[in-house]
Amino acid sequence: MASYVFGVDIGGTSVKIGLFSAEGELLDKWEITTRTDDGGAYILSDIAASVTAKMEEKSLAKEDVIGVGMGVPGPVRDDGTVIKCVNLGWGVFNAAEELSRLLDMKVKVGNDANMAALGEMWQGGGKGHANIVMVTLGTGVGGGIILDGKMLAGVNGAGGEIGHMTMDINETDICNCGKKGCLEQYASATGIVRLANKALNDTDRPSKLREVQYISAKEIFDAAKSGDELASEQVEALGKKLGLAAAQIACVVDPEVFVIGGGVSRAGQIILDVTEKYFRQYAFHACRNTTFELAVLGNDAGMYGGARAVLG
Amino acid sequence: MASYVFGVDIGGTSVKIGLFSAEGELLDKWEITTRTDDGGAYILSDIAASVTAKMEEKSLAKEDVIGVGMGVPGPVRDDGTVIKCVNLGWGVFNAAEELSRLLDMKVKVGNDANMAALGEMWQGGGKGHANIVMVTLGTGVGGGIILDGKMLAGVNGAGGEIGHMTMDINETDICNCGKKGCLEQYASATGIVRLANKALNDTDRPSKLREVQYISAKEIFDAAKSGDELASEQVEALGKKLGLAAAQIACVVDPEVFVIGGGVSRAGQIILDVTEKYFRQYAFHACRNTTFELAVLGNDAGMYGGARAVLG
Repeated sequence: MASYVFGVDIGGTSVKIGLFSAEGELLDKWEITTRTDDGGAYILSDIAASVTAKMEEKSLAKEDVIGVGMGVPGPVRDDGTVIKCVNLGWGVFNAAEELSRLLDMKVKVGNDANMAALGEMWQGGGKGHANIVMVTLGTGVGGGIILDGKMLAGVNGAGGEIGHMTMDINETDICNCGKKGCLEQYASATGIVRLANKALNDTDRPSKLREVQYISAKEIFDAAKSGDELASEQVEALGKKLGLAAAQIACVVDPEVFVIGGGVSRAGQIILDVTEKYFRQYAFHACRNTTFELAVLGNDAGMYGGARAVLG
Repeated sequence: MASYVFGVDIGGTSVKIGLFSAEGELLDKWEITTRTDDGGAYILSDIAASVTAKMEEKSLAKEDVIGVGMGVPGPVRDDGTVIKCVNLGWGVFNAAEELSRLLDMKVKVGNDANMAALGEMWQGGGKGHANIVMVTLGTGVGGGIILDGKMLAGVNGAGGEIGHMTMDINETDICNCGKKGCLEQYASATGIVRLANKALNDTDRPSKLREVQYISAKEIFDAAKSGDELASEQVEALGKKLGLAAAQIACVVDPEVFVIGGGVSRAGQIILDVTEKYFRQYAFHACRNTTFELAVLGNDAGMYGGARAVLG
């Protein structure tokens, strides 16, 4: 009886691959390089070769494997059609069909942030829930929405693209997406650093951050935890935008729990506290008690989600 | 073979009931009074009696009827549990089970705005689509979300409660829900009148609206269509808030189409134009081309949705 699944998470520099039991135990994980030359033409065949090699190593027959689930860094339709992955050089094509043809196996493909959300629902911060919104605070802000245990892909693959919700129509700086005032400009690692540098440059207020040459999000959170006023204000500003966005999202999909992950979430409880504070203030009364949890799977969440997706 | 369905829409003063063919044709419709005394204890038995009487009148046997679908003015969980309907005097109970017991039939219950969205998807402005967001601009602002042909109820029955998305954290006036800055405060009939009166009182700028004793939303739209500058600014302000909210919603559920209904939508094309204008400005590029349509079923949308819901 088939009882193994592979979870794959394609990033711009490396592809993470995990071998899982159908019950959700990570049995083995490894990485291969993402070859982005020739429009990313070798990525799927490299993955197929690596999966096949691992099956040989572990003496797994095709009948032992349920399938492969894969997250990609770009919008993906429900049927596995990738709309474009700029980082990989990919245009528009059905990545699920292509990898399925190469491996002769069931393949499920989704957006990486949606896959991470599914992974956290399965074995992470959202375990025990079937309706979660995951927010990934990294270099950018990603999001993934799971309703009734299924990823919300969206008609244009933009379901859960909450990093690009317009949160300030008066913003003058431009987001990577070309718009102005996106959540990502305030709640990402890049965003909080941008705002801290602005505050440092615009005033001569004292702050521990003035002793640091290149400020990172971690230093801002550490300074805030040790009582630095200017740093604390940056954390408050992040929580205010993120709490407001979460309150708006709750009026749309009304989830059981928000799971916060990504590099910025390593700041820990402080990020939950400040986000919840503003969420409670801005949320509609019926969903004001929705809870917030930290993600626990880190960079493995996408692999977990891929494996979970192929289990159906 | 069963080939008829009843659609019911409970309002604060009357209950609308429709008899439909399974193909979606409205064969008969009528209203009964909503008896809100004794905590709304008679509402469901009145509906059951009215449905039974209609079946006798039309010589329909129980086997001819697939079931009854019903929209109620308050939050409802997927299983038919009403969380509270202040207007009806209802507390928390399973209205679907109760009506099903009274009629010995399959019953599906949902929030009235969600039911209206389902109705518009079936036979209205969203016909041909399976993923729609309906926005109802009436005295308040309601919303309903249909994904893959199914209502998004939400864990607390607050799915699609987009009228209470916080759109301006600096608002000082209070919304009916107790918060400040809800979409409903700007995009409802009440909201646009509130803002127009403010503009008239705060300045002495000329406007046709000064000739009207009690301004309604219709008069504001009519004045805007005839070139009145102050009225046009109010319509722009409504479109700006509604377009921004729609852009945020699109980053969450990424629908095929937004359907705009309710009394304010009788203003027609002008409301689509002004909303789309700001939506295109604030929307993420992947979902920037999402279309906007006017609702077509008017006050019958909820009945249509009820009938559609029970078809599964």
